[in-house]
Amino acid sequence: MENKGLIQIYTGNGKGKTTAAVGLSIRAISHGLNVCYIFFHKDPDSWEYGELRILKELGVEVYGFAKKHPYFSGVINEGEIRKECLKALDFIKEISRQNKYDVLILDEINISLRDGFLKEEEVIEILNSKPEKLEIVLTGRGCPEKLIEKADLVSEIKKIKHPFDKGLLGRKGIEY
Amino acid sequence: MENKGLIQIYTGNGKGKTTAAVGLSIRAISHGLNVCYIFFHKDPDSWEYGELRILKELGVEVYGFAKKHPYFSGVINEGEIRKECLKALDFIKEISRQNKYDVLILDEINISLRDGFLKEEEVIEILNSKPEKLEIVLTGRGCPEKLIEKADLVSEIKKIKHPFDKGLLGRKGIEY
Repeated sequence: MENKGLIQIYTGNGKGKTTAAVGLSIRAISHGLNVCYIFFHKDPDSWEYGELRILKELGVEVYGFAKKHPYFSGVINEGEIRKECLKALDFIKEISRQNKYDVLILDEINISLRDGFLKEEEVIEILNSKPEKLEIVLTGRGCPEKLIEKADLVSEIKKIKHPFDKGLLGRKGIEY
Repeated sequence: MENKGLIQIYTGNGKGKTTAAVGLSIRAISHGLNVCYIFFHKDPDSWEYGELRILKELGVEVYGFAKKHPYFSGVINEGEIRKECLKALDFIKEISRQNKYDVLILDEINISLRDGFLKEEEVIEILNSKPEKLEIVLTGRGCPEKLIEKADLVSEIKKIKHPFDKGLLGRKGIEY
């Protein structure tokens, strides 16, 4: 069974989805697996994602698509974001064809779906055509039901308490 | 606000608690913070926790207490486990006195509580006497309500689906 890659989803409104994906990458790398980490809607120019730097140093291949998002970057061209997301899908298809990774992280891809930048059937097509050995990990709140049906492992990370509710801002090294 | 460390809890029956703690450690290290990672009830002699090796290589100080647990190691002396857990608390108190870390992970300490090897008030005492700057992260299912009240950030990781339910065994690089 060791060679069959599964589909994992981390969704929900609590803290821990991206952090779990980072932890999974570390675990996989520690056992010599090849990891590709693709993030959506995060802009390394305006935020410092230190963990991505460490992942790179450890040999994880890190790529970002659709780095701008209306929520963080204000008014931007939504057609442009859609185009970037489609570019990501093409990239993932190419990766699948090359079959060179054991683990593929799609960090915050659920946000692309939630906000209409990607369609469910487009992501399901990616999952259907994945190489047998490839483990795919999708993160982001609001994962659609159809993807949950398709997945082998789904964790919903529920916020019970979060300091942002008390007005605390994100802290470097902890929240980002 | 950047210097005030909070108390974070990752609990629930889903996959992602320890992985989130590993991810948090990586993020903290990437910003030059000092991290101490203490695990409970995990036996590195019988399981290969590759992620702990990577954390060590990155400069995280890693310690384990009460490495045996009845669930994994069969019949063992429960008094011995209790003693080991108390030793861990002494160690944490000493760490707090020295005030040399920014982040302290107590991985699976909720299991020590759930299974009666530690008492709620003993752990609450640790939380009450933590240095102001120290961020403490507790993981493990079944976190007691009193600790949740005490915490600033709590995520409950709920299992929606898990491949173990279909009889799949833990896979190296993915589950451990």
